[in-house]
Amino acid sequence: MTQRSMPITLQVDLGERSYPIAIGQSLLDDVDLVSRHVRGKRVAIVTNTVVGPLYLDRLARQLADAGKQVTTIVLPDGEEEKNWASLMKVFDVLLAEKCDRKTTLIALGGGVIGDLTGFAAASYMRGVPFIQIPTTLLSQVDSSVGGKTGINHPLGKNMIGAFYQPQAVIADTGTLNTLPPRELSAGLAEVIKHGAIIDPPFFDWIEANMARLVAKDADALSHAIRRSCEIKADVVRQDEREGGLRAILNFGHTFGHAIESGLGYGEWLHGEAVGCGMVMAADLSRRLGFIDAGTRARIASVVQAAGLPIDAPDLGEDRWLELMEVDKKNEGGQIKFILLKPLGTSVVMPVPKEALLATLKACVGR
Amino acid sequence: MTQRSMPITLQVDLGERSYPIAIGQSLLDDVDLVSRHVRGKRVAIVTNTVVGPLYLDRLARQLADAGKQVTTIVLPDGEEEKNWASLMKVFDVLLAEKCDRKTTLIALGGGVIGDLTGFAAASYMRGVPFIQIPTTLLSQVDSSVGGKTGINHPLGKNMIGAFYQPQAVIADTGTLNTLPPRELSAGLAEVIKHGAIIDPPFFDWIEANMARLVAKDADALSHAIRRSCEIKADVVRQDEREGGLRAILNFGHTFGHAIESGLGYGEWLHGEAVGCGMVMAADLSRRLGFIDAGTRARIASVVQAAGLPIDAPDLGEDRWLELMEVDKKNEGGQIKFILLKPLGTSVVMPVPKEALLATLKACVGR
Repeated sequence: MTQRSMPITLQVDLGERSYPIAIGQSLLDDVDLVSRHVRGKRVAIVTNTVVGPLYLDRLARQLADAGKQVTTIVLPDGEEEKNWASLMKVFDVLLAEKCDRKTTLIALGGGVIGDLTGFAAASYMRGVPFIQIPTTLLSQVDSSVGGKTGINHPLGKNMIGAFYQPQAVIADTGTLNTLPPRELSAGLAEVIKHGAIIDPPFFDWIEANMARLVAKDADALSHAIRRSCEIKADVVRQDEREGGLRAILNFGHTFGHAIESGLGYGEWLHGEAVGCGMVMAADLSRRLGFIDAGTRARIASVVQAAGLPIDAPDLGEDRWLELMEVDKKNEGGQIKFILLKPLGTSVVMPVPKEALLATLKACVGR
Repeated sequence: MTQRSMPITLQVDLGERSYPIAIGQSLLDDVDLVSRHVRGKRVAIVTNTVVGPLYLDRLARQLADAGKQVTTIVLPDGEEEKNWASLMKVFDVLLAEKCDRKTTLIALGGGVIGDLTGFAAASYMRGVPFIQIPTTLLSQVDSSVGGKTGINHPLGKNMIGAFYQPQAVIADTGTLNTLPPRELSAGLAEVIKHGAIIDPPFFDWIEANMARLVAKDADALSHAIRRSCEIKADVVRQDEREGGLRAILNFGHTFGHAIESGLGYGEWLHGEAVGCGMVMAADLSRRLGFIDAGTRARIASVVQAAGLPIDAPDLGEDRWLELMEVDKKNEGGQIKFILLKPLGTSVVMPVPKEALLATLKACVGR
């Protein structure tokens, strides 16, 4: 990891829906990189009030210089804005501006903007092209790969959406320089996840390099993003529509979604909830004899070193169970968990209720 | 056409998204026919306040007898209800009842219920299975074939939606016995369309048999439904996502959508607007020398014989143009029309504005 980070292009291999992911410093300064993925004349950039002031003008000007007609849509920031009202604002502008079926939507922002814009692109006139420009670590390593798009419903996160692949993903690591530490940590949760479920050497690397990652060392971040995207792209390639294997990417998410929903969206960041959720899933894995106590401790340590919470909020046992039952992975009424068996490998299975209750008891913060 | 109508099954050939269409009398009395397309244990039937009282209990009881857990959702009737608020009611119930990703949605009703339920199925948890049970002639010959789903936006019809194929379509012609004459006529508009754009012998047959169709002759209706579904399925098979050929199915729709939108959804039925729109498109085709005056007159006659309006509403020239510009077929800012060249064949192309204005002048009712 001593060489300087260079622009990298990965290919997500999904047949006719394949697309490239470009990763590198200052990619937003490369005019041609964005505009060459815009097929028609029109683009609509969707961003929010935090990211917009930093990058919107630069991106819009570049596209205009490349001869594109640019519409911009700036939404309020926050997970609580990932709802139908925000989606309707996008449709309202697209229709008022008479954007046609060849208009490319560009998501400029984090996971909320990416998921919402992707679903808008999937649904506007039954589908228009879109490009993801993720500006947070979380969205660079996770939500920009895999085609999951959607919005939240008051009764559940991401309950309304589509599987819809972008034309391209452009991850400019330079955008992480202004990222608040809490959001960096949230992104690291998914990096840890990718190592934990599928790649033991990468997990070891993450443990050894966590201090560099937290300090925003450019080379370390580039490697973490690249390897995360490779792992996720490989899983998605094998199971685009989440029929089986892809469920392992939800490691930590059954607990995590319950935390987010139980506390109200926006209280904990998604990555914070997933970080804590991984500790809980590791605890459950240990109770079932799939990993040992030392491995459970390693998971908790690396999550904590990433600056993430490891003690779960006290929602009350009944509320915890209720929240997990509406999770999307719940099929036919039985809660399924993604567990480590052992570290670097994962299984998806229902668990005895006693083990689950013991994990809730052990992990809820004192 | 002397033999009695028998249950027919067509296959819509779309690779792994292929599905059967069953057409016949009293299919809703065949318990097994519906339930064998339901893979999981749970179904949610979406219907409206007009169709629900006629068939909902029967269908729900059959599915319950087949061991399915049945949720029912009854929406208000009408094109003006094909909106986000209705869609949210469906999601609210599905989530409140903890319906999971294997729940099959069943659309029991006309095109509005079919389109809305299809989009709900496409979007709920990023996609659950669905079955169409169309109960109007229009939905049996048109909207249940092709996978177009969606809802309206105040600024345009079907502007938000998805291409999403059902597991099966079950068209019980017995449900047409209670169909109001005006809705029967609306369905005949699409039957005429299929003959006009692609099948001259079928157009001849429609002309010769219009009196039987209007009188709800069972054999004539079965043949019309079957041939319409065959034609549409064949077009969709060649162009599932509307890249080219499929546009011909929008014959009459550019004008028709403008009528519906200009008068306010629900004023004219969709089929009425399409019927009048086909007369307008035929008029435009004649002005460009693609068909002769006699053929234009044949189109107007058969549309009128179906009980459909042939005089367009006076929206004002500017409003007409404005309304047609936001149509989905509008790409890159140029309005494209589907024209007959000659009868039984169609072309998609922009037209000189003078010809369009002359058609508007000639077709708007005095």
